[in-house]
Amino acid sequence: MDRKLNLVPFVSVDHMMKLVLSIGVERFLLELSAFVEEDFARWEVFDKTARIASHSAEGVIELMPTSDGAIYGFKYVNGHPKNMRDGRQTVTAFGVLADVANGYPVLFSEMTILTALRTAATSAVAAKHLARKDSLTMAIIGNGAQSEFQALAFKALLGIDRLRLYDIDASASEKCRRNLAGFGFDITLCQSVEAAVEGADIVTTVTADKQNATILTDNLVGAGLHINAVGGDCPGKTELHPGILHRADIFVEYPPQTRIEGEIQQLAPDHVVTELSEVIAGRAVGRRDAAQITLFDSVGFATEDFSALRYVKAKLPGTGFYAEIDLLADPDEPRDLFGMLLRAAAT
Amino acid sequence: MDRKLNLVPFVSVDHMMKLVLSIGVERFLLELSAFVEEDFARWEVFDKTARIASHSAEGVIELMPTSDGAIYGFKYVNGHPKNMRDGRQTVTAFGVLADVANGYPVLFSEMTILTALRTAATSAVAAKHLARKDSLTMAIIGNGAQSEFQALAFKALLGIDRLRLYDIDASASEKCRRNLAGFGFDITLCQSVEAAVEGADIVTTVTADKQNATILTDNLVGAGLHINAVGGDCPGKTELHPGILHRADIFVEYPPQTRIEGEIQQLAPDHVVTELSEVIAGRAVGRRDAAQITLFDSVGFATEDFSALRYVKAKLPGTGFYAEIDLLADPDEPRDLFGMLLRAAAT
Repeated sequence: MDRKLNLVPFVSVDHMMKLVLSIGVERFLLELSAFVEEDFARWEVFDKTARIASHSAEGVIELMPTSDGAIYGFKYVNGHPKNMRDGRQTVTAFGVLADVANGYPVLFSEMTILTALRTAATSAVAAKHLARKDSLTMAIIGNGAQSEFQALAFKALLGIDRLRLYDIDASASEKCRRNLAGFGFDITLCQSVEAAVEGADIVTTVTADKQNATILTDNLVGAGLHINAVGGDCPGKTELHPGILHRADIFVEYPPQTRIEGEIQQLAPDHVVTELSEVIAGRAVGRRDAAQITLFDSVGFATEDFSALRYVKAKLPGTGFYAEIDLLADPDEPRDLFGMLLRAAAT
Repeated sequence: MDRKLNLVPFVSVDHMMKLVLSIGVERFLLELSAFVEEDFARWEVFDKTARIASHSAEGVIELMPTSDGAIYGFKYVNGHPKNMRDGRQTVTAFGVLADVANGYPVLFSEMTILTALRTAATSAVAAKHLARKDSLTMAIIGNGAQSEFQALAFKALLGIDRLRLYDIDASASEKCRRNLAGFGFDITLCQSVEAAVEGADIVTTVTADKQNATILTDNLVGAGLHINAVGGDCPGKTELHPGILHRADIFVEYPPQTRIEGEIQQLAPDHVVTELSEVIAGRAVGRRDAAQITLFDSVGFATEDFSALRYVKAKLPGTGFYAEIDLLADPDEPRDLFGMLLRAAAT
């Protein structure tokens, strides 16, 4: 038997890191962004559903499935803000691609690192369509695990090379600056949100508290700004003062999910928003003029994970950066699952 | 660092077979049934949701999540009836348990074999409460991958040791008889459904066609019979003539899911059914008298997979029947995911 129907390629954390490094982080983000953009452009083919969340006092565990009719994908992801206290990641994830025609998984992959990359790639894709073309400087409010990925994605796609960093914990900003040394950024560490936002063309908010925080207040938002709001991504977790939402044109991934999880959970359920996919497909206008305030209210959608898994699957062959795992029962005769079990006793 | 936060135990197909064989199939089914019954008895603690299905022309891919507040579990499972044609399983599955407190997966396991075991265990648990206590003989209509597991679960829990087998493909019945040789059954191969049902105390229907079939007609169902309807488990896939449903007392796992997927999709949405959990908890009556026709309209519910994963996790320690896989990113400093990636370049 030359078919190994039982085996599924598994990309471990170690293999994912090696894959990313072998391609180069910036090139990985650039290529991944193209997959993300391509899937947003064919938005109508996807089977879309709001993520299935299981909430607890400590956090949330979610499943995010989607399908384009030929490939099915889903991600398992948790969000536990207090995890840092005992040395765990706030967000960990893994994901699967499967063949719709027979239901067999074709890829199993870590997605903690991959989620960080796809979130940044999606933010940069949105900003490519929404930020002013002459944007040079980005403020990053919240300098945790996602911050460097955001910086590099914006550099790769938009050429942003001036960063203004702020975090309530100054050591996080230091860590971000240290990690980004050698990537060609001009980095300023700031003592306050106000200082960070000063002169920024783009503001990325990416804090992790599970609460309605007001990271960015209305008075700090000047004409022409693009706001990339990444941190608010579940009910009761927002980062922007509602006044900002009323002045900005708001762009979202999948409205039924964003109205529950995004910054716009603070607004009336019929507040007008534009789907990013409509802008990418050319059916809606992104940025109208240089004075407009644009807001990408990002919560992360299943198609972005699908794009990321699809990209990883495309890059894997020949790299050796995966293992084959024995995940699927493959009896010689498909109806003879029990016989396979019995015969295993003899081996 | 003595904690290995990145590692998750993975039970491959090979390891699952070794685990089952080391425990013994019948003892495994008996012990697993106790976990299934225990979780049905504490039904109210579970976060219950109908499975999330992605349907295509060829089949379905489903995610089945649940949580008891301390442990979260989900199963990925496909159903592709035409898979047999190219040597694949109709149903394959894998599953995960995670710690609700921090969202970290604690078990990743094959579930193709485990699903067959838990489905059979659940059927036997239901029959323990619903079939006549003097039941000795079971007819099995459909002798595919699930049939031997059903037979052994009913033997382990109810002492059923007489089987009457029928399949439209006689070689499937032969395979079933061959596999069950040595397990102490008195087995009769039958040429028709009518012949198989004759004298049976329990009838298990477990065919695989994705269509509204009438495997069992009304005239074949005598007083006192318990029907274990396993094969009808998605919209448009049923096995029983509606006349049977009107004469039987119907017991189900989770009504919102069964009304969509079970035999009762053929009935009015308000047709009275009893939840199996109510019977197990002693709040509802199962079998009233010896003449009553009882029907377990089984579609498979997430809690059963949860019970199965919980059982496997409990049995694993010390067996060696698992591998540790590098699934979770574990930077020394949780906010420094990017730094971990950078440092991997040096290794």
